[in-house]
Amino acid sequence: MLQVLLLVDLDNDTSVPVFQVCEWHSPEQLKKLLDLELRDGGEAESEILQRCRDAIRYSVKTSHPRFFNQLYAGMEPYSMVASFIAEAVKTNLYTYEVAPVFTLMEDAVLRKMIKVIGWEEGGDGIFNPGGSLSNMYAVNLARYRYCPDFKEVGMFSAPRLVILTSQEVSVVSCLRSEFCVFFRGRMIPSALEEKIMLAKSEGAVPFMVNATAGTTVLGAFDPIDEIADICEKHNLWLHVDACWGGAAIMSKKHKHLLKGIHRVDSVAWNPHKMLMASLQCSAFLVRDKTSLLQHCHSARASYLFQQDKFYDVSYDTGDKSVQCSRKPDAFKFWLMWKALGSRELEQRVDRALAMARYLAEEIKKREGFRLVLEPEYANVCFWYLPPSMRNLPESPELWKKLHTVAPVVKQRMMKKGSMMVGYQPLGEKANFFRMVVISPQVSRQDLDFVLNEIHNLGKDL
Amino acid sequence: MLQVLLLVDLDNDTSVPVFQVCEWHSPEQLKKLLDLELRDGGEAESEILQRCRDAIRYSVKTSHPRFFNQLYAGMEPYSMVASFIAEAVKTNLYTYEVAPVFTLMEDAVLRKMIKVIGWEEGGDGIFNPGGSLSNMYAVNLARYRYCPDFKEVGMFSAPRLVILTSQEVSVVSCLRSEFCVFFRGRMIPSALEEKIMLAKSEGAVPFMVNATAGTTVLGAFDPIDEIADICEKHNLWLHVDACWGGAAIMSKKHKHLLKGIHRVDSVAWNPHKMLMASLQCSAFLVRDKTSLLQHCHSARASYLFQQDKFYDVSYDTGDKSVQCSRKPDAFKFWLMWKALGSRELEQRVDRALAMARYLAEEIKKREGFRLVLEPEYANVCFWYLPPSMRNLPESPELWKKLHTVAPVVKQRMMKKGSMMVGYQPLGEKANFFRMVVISPQVSRQDLDFVLNEIHNLGKDL
Repeated sequence: MLQVLLLVDLDNDTSVPVFQVCEWHSPEQLKKLLDLELRDGGEAESEILQRCRDAIRYSVKTSHPRFFNQLYAGMEPYSMVASFIAEAVKTNLYTYEVAPVFTLMEDAVLRKMIKVIGWEEGGDGIFNPGGSLSNMYAVNLARYRYCPDFKEVGMFSAPRLVILTSQEVSVVSCLRSEFCVFFRGRMIPSALEEKIMLAKSEGAVPFMVNATAGTTVLGAFDPIDEIADICEKHNLWLHVDACWGGAAIMSKKHKHLLKGIHRVDSVAWNPHKMLMASLQCSAFLVRDKTSLLQHCHSARASYLFQQDKFYDVSYDTGDKSVQCSRKPDAFKFWLMWKALGSRELEQRVDRALAMARYLAEEIKKREGFRLVLEPEYANVCFWYLPPSMRNLPESPELWKKLHTVAPVVKQRMMKKGSMMVGYQPLGEKANFFRMVVISPQVSRQDLDFVLNEIHNLGKDL
Repeated sequence: MLQVLLLVDLDNDTSVPVFQVCEWHSPEQLKKLLDLELRDGGEAESEILQRCRDAIRYSVKTSHPRFFNQLYAGMEPYSMVASFIAEAVKTNLYTYEVAPVFTLMEDAVLRKMIKVIGWEEGGDGIFNPGGSLSNMYAVNLARYRYCPDFKEVGMFSAPRLVILTSQEVSVVSCLRSEFCVFFRGRMIPSALEEKIMLAKSEGAVPFMVNATAGTTVLGAFDPIDEIADICEKHNLWLHVDACWGGAAIMSKKHKHLLKGIHRVDSVAWNPHKMLMASLQCSAFLVRDKTSLLQHCHSARASYLFQQDKFYDVSYDTGDKSVQCSRKPDAFKFWLMWKALGSRELEQRVDRALAMARYLAEEIKKREGFRLVLEPEYANVCFWYLPPSMRNLPESPELWKKLHTVAPVVKQRMMKKGSMMVGYQPLGEKANFFRMVVISPQVSRQDLDFVLNEIHNLGKDL
């Protein structure tokens, strides 16, 4: 039905030569087009069908081969079928009783991911609605290990707890009430140890280090192995936010990026990013065999987790989660893994990184394009200098001008609907584009198109 | 496709006279049936199709008219269509740029819910993956209002913060690191004030009261209006967990249960429960007009929330959430509301509560059945006494025996697949059944069937 609706929309819109990535309207315009008001009376089926068509038409086509705006892209058909089934079956993953199939599938996927990571003695885990919550789980568990009576006595008597992390990471979005120490860019092991000593000398208690495998903007990897040495020495929980970079472990060629991950305490890894599982599909994995996840999060709701059930209640996983309702996201990864096998997943990672390498080399060849840094993963970050700026001397003036280029190019590509590429500043760095290659539906021609289109849209600036 | 698959399964299984609610297998048996292992090589499409059939076949049929096991049940077709579209469109709700339609729809649904609640000056809100997280948001905001520098300085210098709540509520699942004061059962306003004074006298700082509108087991409603008086007097944040009971506000006949909700600071309300939106659909609503939600949760990720965008960035709602990825759950409610109108939603609530009343009256008529208490909402809690126990004197001995009845009846109904009804103990109360009426697909005959079937399955005990 969805395909049909999409085709109908395309047929209706003869003013557009090709299938657009988006049909841009401002919020005020789009409100008028959608008639959002909810009323006392209902609408006829034909009207509702038109509302479905409109919802699809005016939504961004994230599966378009020229959508590069986020850390997800493209459509994985097996995973989408699984997500449809999950929606139709309509259940929550708190007990085996009400979600027998999905409970076992989640367990199978977690075990497999743990095996791939290399925790030889096994571990535990759970799927969460997004990587930020997985990172929050890491904080919860690290804190719980440090002080198992937090749940009973609260935090008011706690010392000044310190988490050490690098600055440009998403984990901060769930660390609001903790005291964090930041580093700029990639984590430097010797600087990490200095900060640990500094925190201790101030009477604070470092209890956790958050390393990142694949930062959001640059795709940088912290040196896990060296950080693990320091964490072992100081008895700190080591969590790796591998939401984006975790996929590299599927590849014999690229798994070195995650060297040492078999030594860490916990990992956040989102198969909905590089591996293209349907949104959302985010795993939290922990190298613990003492049911820490359950002990830390359990609320023992008697209406769900009765202990006098007639089956092995260790299959009731709901008490490992801070959620009550929880969707069967693992199924979306399980079905595609079954269909593709580990080998095809590996090939996809290798292909995506080869495409990123191709793009980086093209950028180096082209006048007016400049890499921010050599990519080590699928992120390719670069500036575009319009001809008017190419002969200006390196100066704060130039960078100030350059800072305004990407937003204008972005506005123009959105209004044209030809592609979607993200941009952002980073620290002192002026706005630059971030291309992210994920989907096997993306060709070299698409990458060439991006560079040509940026030039076409920005050459007059 | 799903319907076809379901029918195929039914045709294959000629041993069962009617469409079962579930086809029970123990975890070990089901593992063998499913072949869960993920391998290097992929599988053929025909095999994958069989895996889809199996996933559906062995899953519980939560849309079956005799599924009463949770606080969700039945299928709302408009909402399911919306969930399919949301899966296919595949996007995240952090920015208007990448989710223009769903951003506006979420805004429209939140505004409408706020209007229904009666916050005349408006408010703010966000959809979350489940009510527990909405309740966590309430804690975050209440704490942030009390101490706006928590994000910078951490909690180590905080006083002993106290949240007051009743005991049998789900909110505790996210309050682990707080110090809570509990009440048994429904909140008693005078006892609440005593506890506030007690906490203060011990040097603690009460900052929030969590009231419940529709408890999970009994369906009880705390007296919001009276609690609001106390919270105003002591300047405490008043949150109402109305995940389950919020739907009553749609009904002129039953909205009195929530009297005073227009005075509270925040509300958690899950349309995926009584109103049958597809899982998950959970709103957090806050009666604040100072962007507290954004200030409390923002991480200002520069790669998403650039301030030099070409459109009004106040439409980028992602910074109100602790999630980064966030699904367009509001759309699932918006489309069904459009199709049904407020009036049909009201009628559904009225019908569900009338059915619960019918069931309660039937229970009173029948020998061997005993209500735990008169229902005020859609929860009907009752004991079943097999004939062998009906003439025993009231004694701890009787209750001890009775405690074992529900688990056995539950086991038998699961193995037969004839229906699914939950049971649980509560405080000192022996195991009792909890029936929950939600779906308009449930008839009086289905309710009669439940009582007859419990008797048939338990009469020999």
